[in-house]
Amino acid sequence: MNETSQQRQSNNLRAVRIGLDTHDQPVIITHRNCPLCRSEGFSAHARVRIGNGAKRVIATLYQIESDWLEPGQAALSESAWRLLNIHEGDEIHLSHPQPLDSLGRVRGRIYGQPIDRQAMNGIIADIAAGRYADIHTAMFLTTMASRGLTDEELVSLTEAMISAGERLEWPRSPIVDKHCVGGLPGNRTTPLIVAIVAANGLWMPKTSSRAITSPAGTADTMETLAPVHLDLAELRNVVEREGGCVVWGGAVRLSPVDDMLIRVARVMDLDAEGQLITSVMSKKIAAGATHLVLDLPVGETAKVRSRADADHLAEKLDLVASAFGMRSRVLITDGRQPVGRGIGPALEARDILAVLNNESDAPDDLRERSVELAGAVLELANVAEPDQGRALAEQTLTSGGAWKKFEAICQAQGGLREPPRAHRTLEILAEQDAEVVAIDNRRLGRVAKLAGAPGAPAAGVGLHVRVGDRVSRDQALYTIHADTLGELNYAREFALHNQDLIRLGQV
Amino acid sequence: MNETSQQRQSNNLRAVRIGLDTHDQPVIITHRNCPLCRSEGFSAHARVRIGNGAKRVIATLYQIESDWLEPGQAALSESAWRLLNIHEGDEIHLSHPQPLDSLGRVRGRIYGQPIDRQAMNGIIADIAAGRYADIHTAMFLTTMASRGLTDEELVSLTEAMISAGERLEWPRSPIVDKHCVGGLPGNRTTPLIVAIVAANGLWMPKTSSRAITSPAGTADTMETLAPVHLDLAELRNVVEREGGCVVWGGAVRLSPVDDMLIRVARVMDLDAEGQLITSVMSKKIAAGATHLVLDLPVGETAKVRSRADADHLAEKLDLVASAFGMRSRVLITDGRQPVGRGIGPALEARDILAVLNNESDAPDDLRERSVELAGAVLELANVAEPDQGRALAEQTLTSGGAWKKFEAICQAQGGLREPPRAHRTLEILAEQDAEVVAIDNRRLGRVAKLAGAPGAPAAGVGLHVRVGDRVSRDQALYTIHADTLGELNYAREFALHNQDLIRLGQV
Repeated sequence: MNETSQQRQSNNLRAVRIGLDTHDQPVIITHRNCPLCRSEGFSAHARVRIGNGAKRVIATLYQIESDWLEPGQAALSESAWRLLNIHEGDEIHLSHPQPLDSLGRVRGRIYGQPIDRQAMNGIIADIAAGRYADIHTAMFLTTMASRGLTDEELVSLTEAMISAGERLEWPRSPIVDKHCVGGLPGNRTTPLIVAIVAANGLWMPKTSSRAITSPAGTADTMETLAPVHLDLAELRNVVEREGGCVVWGGAVRLSPVDDMLIRVARVMDLDAEGQLITSVMSKKIAAGATHLVLDLPVGETAKVRSRADADHLAEKLDLVASAFGMRSRVLITDGRQPVGRGIGPALEARDILAVLNNESDAPDDLRERSVELAGAVLELANVAEPDQGRALAEQTLTSGGAWKKFEAICQAQGGLREPPRAHRTLEILAEQDAEVVAIDNRRLGRVAKLAGAPGAPAAGVGLHVRVGDRVSRDQALYTIHADTLGELNYAREFALHNQDLIRLGQV
Repeated sequence: MNETSQQRQSNNLRAVRIGLDTHDQPVIITHRNCPLCRSEGFSAHARVRIGNGAKRVIATLYQIESDWLEPGQAALSESAWRLLNIHEGDEIHLSHPQPLDSLGRVRGRIYGQPIDRQAMNGIIADIAAGRYADIHTAMFLTTMASRGLTDEELVSLTEAMISAGERLEWPRSPIVDKHCVGGLPGNRTTPLIVAIVAANGLWMPKTSSRAITSPAGTADTMETLAPVHLDLAELRNVVEREGGCVVWGGAVRLSPVDDMLIRVARVMDLDAEGQLITSVMSKKIAAGATHLVLDLPVGETAKVRSRADADHLAEKLDLVASAFGMRSRVLITDGRQPVGRGIGPALEARDILAVLNNESDAPDDLRERSVELAGAVLELANVAEPDQGRALAEQTLTSGGAWKKFEAICQAQGGLREPPRAHRTLEILAEQDAEVVAIDNRRLGRVAKLAGAPGAPAAGVGLHVRVGDRVSRDQALYTIHADTLGELNYAREFALHNQDLIRLGQV
């Protein structure tokens, strides 16, 4: 006993705060001569368990040989600082992490063994607690993508992801929701749908994600119009007052593991079907939705490339929905080109404002899609008769009712604001008189990303043409918006090497 | 032009050396207010390209908010420092990394598309140049493990790994080699075989690996007897003088990518067949071997668990060998229990010394295996007639010829030395009079690892019993050796929770 308590004493280091930003990866830096690391056999790149009272986190250890630190000190990343709730100068405790049993199940799956419900819970609980290194998470995501998820795995992964986070319950029903399986730049119907259906008395507590591999997620776009970083209590207040909201899902900790998986999937640039389904469904179910409309755009360069893929995805989404007692309706839509004009958070926000305000130059396609999907929600929730949803949605927009509701929601979320404008723009011109034959969603999305979206909210692409349009030589096809010269140059260079991302044909 | 050169100027930061040890992961730390990062849109956890003259490396960026750094400075990890060949105060250049085309092929394989020869070369070249984040390498290893490698992938991965490193050529033939597919603690035949066959005039330039998931690799064990960190020229000198060597493969940069893959595979705790085959064969071929004997121990807790698995592995090893014009012979051996007494670098080294010196208590099984395998090498290389190899090997040991040769090799590598002894030991005792029914290689290996092996070379396990032995209550089954109390406690705790790792039956 004595020996143990003495050892615990000597396993302590003094925490030093240096504002070390490593995103969400916990990192600890010690001096190479740290006596504790020596006695425990910790060397660089080791995984170590840090304790502060009852709180624990597993971090990657780096070591330095400089007077930045004394041997008895440890600098922690801000992520570790938050998870451990430390104060400057606190003593932290270092030890060897327990071997992770759940990793054995991940390895087992690599060799063909499906993951059962209990094992899935163990894996997700370990990820939620920060026990997986990025390498482990990448291994999990790759094997899930590699062999596809069984139906049982789809349900158990969704369930485990829900259990790892908060879950909303509402005093009434139906609670409606809508989700679009991305891949279509500028397809920002969500804020419009929320405004339309909430104006018709439905409750729609919408939590949205930030971009995974695209230049903007709905949360990124909405953030240029109003605060989206609301906690659970704030979200509830907004919905109880206005019937709807559009907030960032990560902040309310519905399915927080999803965000951890997304960060790694983004580095992998991997969009796997199973991850997509469980990501969507875990968030919807955790948000308390009872009725869900799903928008699956299909197009050669959209996320879903064929009708067959869309049908398969729709079947799996329905399967998970019904496993959790949710009613769902899938709409397969046209995904051959971007929707609206803007690609990037602020540029997309401007399109939304134009539609809500019934401006004469508002993008028709964005308006049409929003009306169609909002109509489907109104029908699914029995607010409109079958085939009458679309007309009701249309009228809600035209009357200004949707705009009024949107303004009220933004105010309730913390205040409506003006989307920012980029400091620099550059037009990409047509090289000849021609007709626009096709637009590559993916490469156009990449131009917007190279220009800085979504990190720089004002950055992105303003698209001036649609498939079928005639253009003259030197007419602007699209405008690149960027905040910095470096980013503008990256985007321009890629654009000039990929002139055919807007394919022009003989007139 | 002007703008570009001006921009290049402002993309520079002053390098600061803080001895940051991150193992081989390149890391760069800047101040949060670094104007360059702001203008380029670099945020924490981004991948950035660092340039110093013509040298380039891709690193993970972290940011701090402290007076440790000025905004115009950047601290680099020692790994980046080495790869870039920087001097303190040098100006380094930061830019966005190019998108990695080869990652698309890795993703493609996740969805079932085999990787062709050209794509494999691209992947391995990117890994060799440090362009893959750990997450990307984990994705590559997982998909290769997940679907197994096709024969074409086995050959192309081996070829790509050879191309990424140095390749030895020798002025004579045959050049012999031997490899054991691990999983058997203490199975340290290699130094004995090198000594025996070199004493018989053969050339055996042996490069060995460090431990992957085991408590000791041959290089770890040999390092307690002589320096193993030799470069290519030094290796060549030793072999030309003495006919044999046992050095660390990583230091001579034969198949350096293998070591990068192994580091990530170790965190994953993954031992995949394809990685195993390409790892072994790329090193042997790069080392210039023409004749190769492979030892595949089979046992329930060995790496290869069944005769069928061994046959499959043998077939694939032969396939790759013949694709590169190498003659090979596979021996399937008994893998039901550890070999020798020591498990851990120094403890295994003592077993080797005992066999070489014909000591009366030298472990019989280690001696027997070494003689059998060395005999197979002597026969394969036509130094012994068929069925005469074993007798020749036996005689080389008994006569002291092998010991003399081993001493000479150690001297040529930099000097024979005494293996270290651990500061603390603890015996694990039998709880009853019993017979030893089975020994779990894996869990016994874990005891040795928890005790500090291979990082602490003196740490590990000294095994006192073999399957079939009778033991009395309170007789020592094995002794744990550790340098620190912390490690001794981890190993003891695991041992006490896993009493059945040595299974005792009724007498």
